[in-house]
Amino acid sequence: MNTTNAGTHTDHDFLYLQVADRLEKQIGQGVLKTGDKLLSVRSLSREQGISISTAFNAYTHLEIRGLIEARPKSGYYVRFTPTQYPEPLLVEKPANEGREVSTDEMIALVYKAMSDEGVVRLSLAGPSVDLLPKARLTKALIEAIRESSNSCINYEQLQGDQRLRQQVAKLAFNWGGNVQGDDIITTQGCMEALVFCLKAVTKPGDTVAIESPTYFSIFNVMQSLGLKVVEIPTDPVTGLDISFLSEAIKRTKITACLFVPNFNNPTGSCMPDENKKRLVNLLTKHKIPLVEDDIYGELYFGRNRPRTCKSYDKNGWVLLCSSISKTLSPGYRVGWCIPGKYKAEVLKLKLMHTVSSATPTQAAIGMFFSKGRFDLHLRHLRKALYTQCLQHMKAISDYFPADTCVTVPQGGYVFWIKLNRKVNAFQLFKKAMEENISIAPGQIFTTDARFRNYIRLSFGQPYDKKIERSMKILGRLIKEIIEN
Amino acid sequence: MNTTNAGTHTDHDFLYLQVADRLEKQIGQGVLKTGDKLLSVRSLSREQGISISTAFNAYTHLEIRGLIEARPKSGYYVRFTPTQYPEPLLVEKPANEGREVSTDEMIALVYKAMSDEGVVRLSLAGPSVDLLPKARLTKALIEAIRESSNSCINYEQLQGDQRLRQQVAKLAFNWGGNVQGDDIITTQGCMEALVFCLKAVTKPGDTVAIESPTYFSIFNVMQSLGLKVVEIPTDPVTGLDISFLSEAIKRTKITACLFVPNFNNPTGSCMPDENKKRLVNLLTKHKIPLVEDDIYGELYFGRNRPRTCKSYDKNGWVLLCSSISKTLSPGYRVGWCIPGKYKAEVLKLKLMHTVSSATPTQAAIGMFFSKGRFDLHLRHLRKALYTQCLQHMKAISDYFPADTCVTVPQGGYVFWIKLNRKVNAFQLFKKAMEENISIAPGQIFTTDARFRNYIRLSFGQPYDKKIERSMKILGRLIKEIIEN
Repeated sequence: MNTTNAGTHTDHDFLYLQVADRLEKQIGQGVLKTGDKLLSVRSLSREQGISISTAFNAYTHLEIRGLIEARPKSGYYVRFTPTQYPEPLLVEKPANEGREVSTDEMIALVYKAMSDEGVVRLSLAGPSVDLLPKARLTKALIEAIRESSNSCINYEQLQGDQRLRQQVAKLAFNWGGNVQGDDIITTQGCMEALVFCLKAVTKPGDTVAIESPTYFSIFNVMQSLGLKVVEIPTDPVTGLDISFLSEAIKRTKITACLFVPNFNNPTGSCMPDENKKRLVNLLTKHKIPLVEDDIYGELYFGRNRPRTCKSYDKNGWVLLCSSISKTLSPGYRVGWCIPGKYKAEVLKLKLMHTVSSATPTQAAIGMFFSKGRFDLHLRHLRKALYTQCLQHMKAISDYFPADTCVTVPQGGYVFWIKLNRKVNAFQLFKKAMEENISIAPGQIFTTDARFRNYIRLSFGQPYDKKIERSMKILGRLIKEIIEN
Repeated sequence: MNTTNAGTHTDHDFLYLQVADRLEKQIGQGVLKTGDKLLSVRSLSREQGISISTAFNAYTHLEIRGLIEARPKSGYYVRFTPTQYPEPLLVEKPANEGREVSTDEMIALVYKAMSDEGVVRLSLAGPSVDLLPKARLTKALIEAIRESSNSCINYEQLQGDQRLRQQVAKLAFNWGGNVQGDDIITTQGCMEALVFCLKAVTKPGDTVAIESPTYFSIFNVMQSLGLKVVEIPTDPVTGLDISFLSEAIKRTKITACLFVPNFNNPTGSCMPDENKKRLVNLLTKHKIPLVEDDIYGELYFGRNRPRTCKSYDKNGWVLLCSSISKTLSPGYRVGWCIPGKYKAEVLKLKLMHTVSSATPTQAAIGMFFSKGRFDLHLRHLRKALYTQCLQHMKAISDYFPADTCVTVPQGGYVFWIKLNRKVNAFQLFKKAMEENISIAPGQIFTTDARFRNYIRLSFGQPYDKKIERSMKILGRLIKEIIEN
């Protein structure tokens, strides 16, 4: 259910969601238009034969999703018509040969642009710090240090802070997992977890299957580990093309896979649960380990947290990696992995590469989680992100050319946008930088020259006048490129 | 001067040190024996034609070094006679072929033993937390977070906290360095710095020269990076045998070196400054990068901080690595490197492997340094370590067999001890573990089966009844092994 576009609910859902879905369809089909007044809660209740509170919940749901708005002393109005959403993207089929990953000047430039002062960072696939609970996190840190008999000054045990691991195990319940604290190894952010897991299951020269398009840092990591990649095409809604992968396994010796099934970066896709199960079965059959990056999994716009591939993993072939960098604090560098049958290898790598993870920051996050503060924070964050998603989406509709195609994110931080064929995204990137706007050009999400007319835009920053202005400028730049 | 055994001072030193040296010699030669009463400060002043304060300083110096003691209302007495020190070790010449590093079951066992509860950790080459400024560090952390506009919640810049880097650059003055904050990259402890630097200067299959014996974790790192090693013999006082290295370079393609010139682990040796200069010249001539681990450099028992190889590096071939794990807090995981001409490569590796280092802990250490608290703390720590060194040394003299040879550490945390040829150190390790005492057996400091009758003992823990008892038991176990 979370694996389809946000907004489609089935019989299994609560009544208010069914009502909301039907209303959303009417909005989608243009039956209800932007600015239309909706029935009052009382009238809706009477007409549909539902309780007042069900009617109210249905409206509230649509309101949270940004589709309608409540005007004081007036009632509910349609706010935004999603028929303005351009059509979803076609899947692009990449070539299927293993090849050396080459470093990209472009990636360096994009990274540099991200850290320049005064730049509007539409390229950053992460949260604005304004969305994060600074004071509560500081409080948890101080509490954790006070509680520690040696003020968190000494080495943490190799596997990681015990309370943090227990809390991460508890969180696993939400994605269908059944893990213990002892199954978990903490790391310095998700990237370190990915590196350790990849190192644990491969050796230099091996080939790893990744999604196409894929997060650009992954190419650097692969290159650094001496690995080759096979890019597997993805659907912008359902993610990985499992049949393509299945064929690729027959033709190429694939040693491991690295996928981002939930709210993929850059496409925002979410693999349906049945696909996850199929994928895990396929890989288990071929004894191919799957490194699963679930860093965005908590940031769903639907009703439930999507499951993970790990939740279907009976034999330990899935190594799940995640962190708090996209939900709580990028700066604390607290991540973890659940490496299944590769626990001993990952522990050994952690010991030799970093000895142990930082004690105070792990203890702080363990404390924050154990006080139940994470759940509350996530609820606020999801709401804010979904609103921002719709606001940015509206700006794309308003300011970008009519032939723009954009994915409908089901969670996470990013849009994957296909522009007119005349647009070279890297050229657009350079022009945008002259206006102090950073975007991520499509070319950096692949190892060959595809996606040249794609860009990734983030909606992680609260939508304000500066963003509005930047979106307007971007739209103008795109139009200028097309016209020249 | 810091590069010879502690206790030998030259004309360049202050007058009180010359007086102290002469007294130390008398103690060393048995002219003054344990329990002998020394001249009063007034008499010493009169007899030597020195000021009262010079006489007082000389006695204080010897007292700090544990050689004499002041008894209330009585005067100064000789406390310990260093003629009891066994002779220094002979250099062992290892074979000189490049070879694959193999993992060692023993290393895993020693690591495991270190983290067992209730074990007296004579195997841990680091500080007791009782020697570390817990409260002041917590204070610095809170100050740093309060000062940060976003409570240290966001990513730190890739190169690392700016204030921390500036402070590390300031510290470089003490080891003869002339570096700027911009030359420095922060890391998650020294181990991460070593891994990044090694990766920056090698590729899998390359051969790296290391010291023999060498810190056992180094072998794991080399194996993980797919590197071969050539072990270069060392002298227990002056460290690396440069002539041997020079010959090895002619015979083997050595891609890089990884050395610990100051207070080597496990030998405690300190390379004389002129040797450092020679080494850097040799490597520069052959364009071989040197990864220099200076993690123990601040923990000198002599009068001055020893210089580093980096201080002689004119062309950027030396990549200096260090951290606060041995001086301030192992748990904060704050380290750095000064990678010379390899800065861009190391930055790239840092980006792809960990994105950035943790913000709060870096900010805390930067704050702690900037308040001038590090210098004060180091003075206390050095004094404590030197006292502990002498106390442990005395226990070795008292309880170990007479044919025991032990290095005289010039700084750092460890003794390198040669036992009777009949002793298999790994057997001793197992017997000691039955008594809840962990030691590091010599076999784990090399890739072949040498050093089987050597052990490394740490004096990082304050000398108390528990340690006293453990040293006594160790001595008994050694004697039992020899007798059976």
